[in-house]
Amino acid sequence: MKIGIVGATGYGGTELVRILSHHPHAEECILYSSSGEGNVYSEVYPHLTGLADQKLKPIDMNTIKHEIDIMFLAAPPGVSSELTPQLADAGIPVIDLSGDLRIQEPAEYEKWYKRTAAPKKVIHEAVYGLAELNQKQIQQAKLIANPGCFPTAVLLGLAPLARKKLLNESFVIVDAKTGVSGAGRKASMGTHFSELNDNFKIYKVNEHQHTPEIEQALNEWQPGLGPITFSAHLVPMTRGIMATMYTQLTTSDLSADDLHDLYSEFYQDSYFVRVRPKGQYPQTKEVYGSNFCDIAVTLDERTNRVTIVSVIDNLMKGAAGQAVQNFNLMNGWNEETGLTMTPIYP
Amino acid sequence: MKIGIVGATGYGGTELVRILSHHPHAEECILYSSSGEGNVYSEVYPHLTGLADQKLKPIDMNTIKHEIDIMFLAAPPGVSSELTPQLADAGIPVIDLSGDLRIQEPAEYEKWYKRTAAPKKVIHEAVYGLAELNQKQIQQAKLIANPGCFPTAVLLGLAPLARKKLLNESFVIVDAKTGVSGAGRKASMGTHFSELNDNFKIYKVNEHQHTPEIEQALNEWQPGLGPITFSAHLVPMTRGIMATMYTQLTTSDLSADDLHDLYSEFYQDSYFVRVRPKGQYPQTKEVYGSNFCDIAVTLDERTNRVTIVSVIDNLMKGAAGQAVQNFNLMNGWNEETGLTMTPIYP
Amino acid sequence: MKIGIVGATGYGGTELVRILSHHPHAEECILYSSSGEGNVYSEVYPHLTGLADQKLKPIDMNTIKHEIDIMFLAAPPGVSSELTPQLADAGIPVIDLSGDLRIQEPAEYEKWYKRTAAPKKVIHEAVYGLAELNQKQIQQAKLIANPGCFPTAVLLGLAPLARKKLLNESFVIVDAKTGVSGAGRKASMGTHFSELNDNFKIYKVNEHQHTPEIEQALNEWQPGLGPITFSAHLVPMTRGIMATMYTQLTTSDLSADDLHDLYSEFYQDSYFVRVRPKGQYPQTKEVYGSNFCDIAVTLDERTNRVTIVSVIDNLMKGAAGQAVQNFNLMNGWNEETGLTMTPIYP
Amino acid sequence: MKIGIVGATGYGGTELVRILSHHPHAEECILYSSSGEGNVYSEVYPHLTGLADQKLKPIDMNTIKHEIDIMFLAAPPGVSSELTPQLADAGIPVIDLSGDLRIQEPAEYEKWYKRTAAPKKVIHEAVYGLAELNQKQIQQAKLIANPGCFPTAVLLGLAPLARKKLLNESFVIVDAKTGVSGAGRKASMGTHFSELNDNFKIYKVNEHQHTPEIEQALNEWQPGLGPITFSAHLVPMTRGIMATMYTQLTTSDLSADDLHDLYSEFYQDSYFVRVRPKGQYPQTKEVYGSNFCDIAVTLDERTNRVTIVSVIDNLMKGAAGQAVQNFNLMNGWNEETGLTMTPIYP
Repeated sequence: MKIGIVGATGYGGTELVRILSHHPHAEECILYSSSGEGNVYSEVYPHLTGLADQKLKPIDMNTIKHEIDIMFLAAPPGVSSELTPQLADAGIPVIDLSGDLRIQEPAEYEKWYKRTAAPKKVIHEAVYGLAELNQKQIQQAKLIANPGCFPTAVLLGLAPLARKKLLNESFVIVDAKTGVSGAGRKASMGTHFSELNDNFKIYKVNEHQHTPEIEQALNEWQPGLGPITFSAHLVPMTRGIMATMYTQLTTSDLSADDLHDLYSEFYQDSYFVRVRPKGQYPQTKEVYGSNFCDIAVTLDERTNRVTIVSVIDNLMKGAAGQAVQNFNLMNGWNEETGLTMTPIYP
Repeated sequence: MKIGIVGATGYGGTELVRILSHHPHAEECILYSSSGEGNVYSEVYPHLTGLADQKLKPIDMNTIKHEIDIMFLAAPPGVSSELTPQLADAGIPVIDLSGDLRIQEPAEYEKWYKRTAAPKKVIHEAVYGLAELNQKQIQQAKLIANPGCFPTAVLLGLAPLARKKLLNESFVIVDAKTGVSGAGRKASMGTHFSELNDNFKIYKVNEHQHTPEIEQALNEWQPGLGPITFSAHLVPMTRGIMATMYTQLTTSDLSADDLHDLYSEFYQDSYFVRVRPKGQYPQTKEVYGSNFCDIAVTLDERTNRVTIVSVIDNLMKGAAGQAVQNFNLMNGWNEETGLTMTPIYP
Repeated sequence: MKIGIVGATGYGGTELVRILSHHPHAEECILYSSSGEGNVYSEVYPHLTGLADQKLKPIDMNTIKHEIDIMFLAAPPGVSSELTPQLADAGIPVIDLSGDLRIQEPAEYEKWYKRTAAPKKVIHEAVYGLAELNQKQIQQAKLIANPGCFPTAVLLGLAPLARKKLLNESFVIVDAKTGVSGAGRKASMGTHFSELNDNFKIYKVNEHQHTPEIEQALNEWQPGLGPITFSAHLVPMTRGIMATMYTQLTTSDLSADDLHDLYSEFYQDSYFVRVRPKGQYPQTKEVYGSNFCDIAVTLDERTNRVTIVSVIDNLMKGAAGQAVQNFNLMNGWNEETGLTMTPIYP
Repeated sequence: MKIGIVGATGYGGTELVRILSHHPHAEECILYSSSGEGNVYSEVYPHLTGLADQKLKPIDMNTIKHEIDIMFLAAPPGVSSELTPQLADAGIPVIDLSGDLRIQEPAEYEKWYKRTAAPKKVIHEAVYGLAELNQKQIQQAKLIANPGCFPTAVLLGLAPLARKKLLNESFVIVDAKTGVSGAGRKASMGTHFSELNDNFKIYKVNEHQHTPEIEQALNEWQPGLGPITFSAHLVPMTRGIMATMYTQLTTSDLSADDLHDLYSEFYQDSYFVRVRPKGQYPQTKEVYGSNFCDIAVTLDERTNRVTIVSVIDNLMKGAAGQAVQNFNLMNGWNEETGLTMTPIYP
């Protein structure tokens, strides 16, 4: 297949190029850019010297519709609202990595994103691409809203409980930590080395736009669940997300062992979710460069509270990796196709 | 005054040397070591070349009792249980930076530390040196149990609520993050650069020995409060602790503004605690190398939950800095004496 | 083929496992260990959970000789001196990643390594596995001395000049910088996070054991060349080596353009060496996780001096990657087989 | 004295504030800014909350001339050319931290800086503030050109040789490494965390604007010395510079011990230069936050080449610290006044 990528100059985009250049069903990657058209891609990213020396092409729908079989949109907010209908008209399936199409309720989107929502029609056509949970719908989809990085880690961590209505709504606390690549390649004070190195900060307390995305999925699984509390922290590292989640169960019938079993069984057929042995906790580096989501769960008998730890590589399972996993599912291939890279350690 | 330090080869010890070498009432620092006796201190720590070229002396109580006016113990577990009674006999006040004397209930100590507790007599003589909260007792004390690094950040963050019985015991969640220097100077897999760099890990989930220390103080302030949930995380940075704390209030009468006012007033006379303006959150680097504890507090009206963020430099306010603050209080000096260093930024 | 690895618990060993687990001609990896026998490998390296759950086996030559078709030795100094003859007797080809077999002159080895040299017979059988330069001998070899990490970067950077006798012996200065993984997984003060983070240090000035390895190869290419000056520096990062090299040419007939052309032509058939366009300098991250060696060369007309910059991933092209490249050559396969991974960026 | 600072929002500026807020002769710091006027300084730098809550003032010479006794200029290129003559007219001494006034030859400045040079009159009035070497002229000066960060490390490292005409001009190679704070606070791809973290890069090879500053001083000390070779590298750390320098001596009469003695004697009265014991090499962190320059020198008998290692904190001895040292000298105070802070380690 011929694959188009809009936004290849961003980190999500270049990670798509890394994956797809070794994907057995990807014949060619055509890279589109509004800002960098005409530039040689390996001059933008010299690590690709000799590997991706093609020029960036302008986003011209007349050409695009004859060139590609599927489009990945890894572009800033607003772009997919505009391009998705045109691509649909041209019959080209789309996997959108932005947050534009993830929130079903426009008012909710606008409240958290402080932007105009995409047209309702587009939003409603989009299938939420949380691959392990929505596999069937994804297989039928022509338009995927690829999940956010934090929601991927959080939802995979909470799904086994929410699906069984086990989350106690008195508190679901998500304390999330991310590497800096999640903020993209644009230079700003928020990505400035000297401001972040040997430093640890919290941001968007109770205001992070990934909150409604998490709540939307949780409420689908466990209707009526109240709001969660979500905080994001910035770790002086490049890649990786850890979500540490705290809650209580709605039942007292489950032992710590039962809880661990519940998780292991829930994910027993999911190649990319590795529930760790009891007592072992994952580190972000242990999934570095891979599409794995590693999870630990524990019930503390002293406090009767549950702690869940979930780690991903934010550019892989949290973005490009899951996008390719969705690409595989949409095409009826094994979800692991082209995604079996071993984590790089150390 | 002549000052003795046991354990000067550790990070807490060398931070004491840094502070005390500029303290107006510290005439001389005499450094004792069981492992390194005879070594020139600036060969152990070459950054002190020309500044601290004295030799490390053996721990010999016969000599010690004639040499010093006060002793700081920055030694591994077990040492202070042994030395403290001897120093007391010699009439030498002690500030102990270990965890040995902090837990009043020996069984509790032994459960969490998995070690034999210190003699009851010694424990009961020790005053818990949380300087902002126990100022009066510290001024009278001859023996200080200097607080742990995590408890300092956490307790300063929760004290305004606990003192007013405002913590809702249904959940008090503490998600703590620390730089690696908290693990000391001993080489191990847990302090290995390649294992920690560009990585983020969680450790001692529900098992951290600082938990009972936090609960003990909270229960003194708000009797009957149930257990807290505490997790520690390791950040790829050298210094700094952030504790992110989540709870609910026992009342619905306080607005977000009221809550912020409560904190500001609580700490209005505390030079070292800086309650940040509403909406501003502290970063660990903003207290780097200083004795400040910076705090933010917020009440989210959507969820009705409270988030408190507290940051310190673990080697300063979390160890040596607070020890010197206690030294000042014990001697009737202004608590800021020798501790007004500006944070180093960036 | 069935592949044996001794020393799989080290970083070089686990990188071999990462590569070989996707190598089309590697049927199975059998992992041997003297210290960790019986342990499950994915418990030593949890990033391999589900990917390499085999147990580590003892080093028992009676078993080994029936189990494997080739052996990679990624063990501490001394091990290969002992194992290599036994493996030769059993007819098993060996790729040795240690420094034991690289120095032809035992006295030279003993002077720099401060250890007894391997038996002469073994040393003389070993082919120096600098893949781009010694391709023919490698193809015939049964025993490979895989080059050191620094020598690989340095020799690929200097070979085009030395092969043409263009190095001016008045000075060849090599200022080398490495990430910390080069020091291995053993915990020590030299790999302690708090000692290295936000710090930069120089070590083994004029004493690094890779010096004679570099000089040996240079003198083979340009006989009579005098000693080089070599310094190693430790960078607070995990992976990557940059060698910055300074020299003068023996001729004044070459322009800056000529010099660049000389390099481009020298490596035109070498997939893994990427000579960068004139004026562009490689960064270590641009080869992260890959087997590339990226090189820049420049002649400064103001000073008439040449600067060469060469970067590799020390665990890949500097160790496991080049070892597999040699494995490919020994077996008559394309040298790129199983080694085409794209650098991970950012 | 009342002290003015232009450019307080930059890193050099905030380091001046840190030092001067504890300087015994600094009564008040008045902060001027063209871009940030009206802003509260501690909102720009929250680590100064409660410590520097004054507002930034506009740069209005009519006011300035009545407000301050001395001006520190820590501003971008071009500003000092404009302000210095006006401050001179008002009789206000100036310490300029920019590169504008350091190069005596305008054509040389314009070639390397690619900007118009400052007026000749201003340049010629400026005394080059390399405090250890130019002490006498600094004591008489009204206008100081404070040295660049790299030149400070390099010149202190080479001065003992150059002053004795011992540098062999066949090669003086300077391989310099710096932390990222040297690039200032402006956000750019060159200071982007994800681009720099776990990465090591070289930049401005043979083109760095600090080259002529170094050559100018060396040629003053050892007239006729030819050009040096200078390369800058960026280390993933915030603060610190190491310059590794390679050369040969013009004599063969000096042994390694003689050479070390020469350095020790040369700096025996310089508080801020610490020549390390023979065989010990300084690390950048060992001067972190302090005004020290630590130096090692070695003569390798095998190669007959000399290696000199010099480290500083680029924001202290390489900028604000040396500026205050010059401030002390200009006013006849002890050069250490307000500058005796111990390096922060770890």
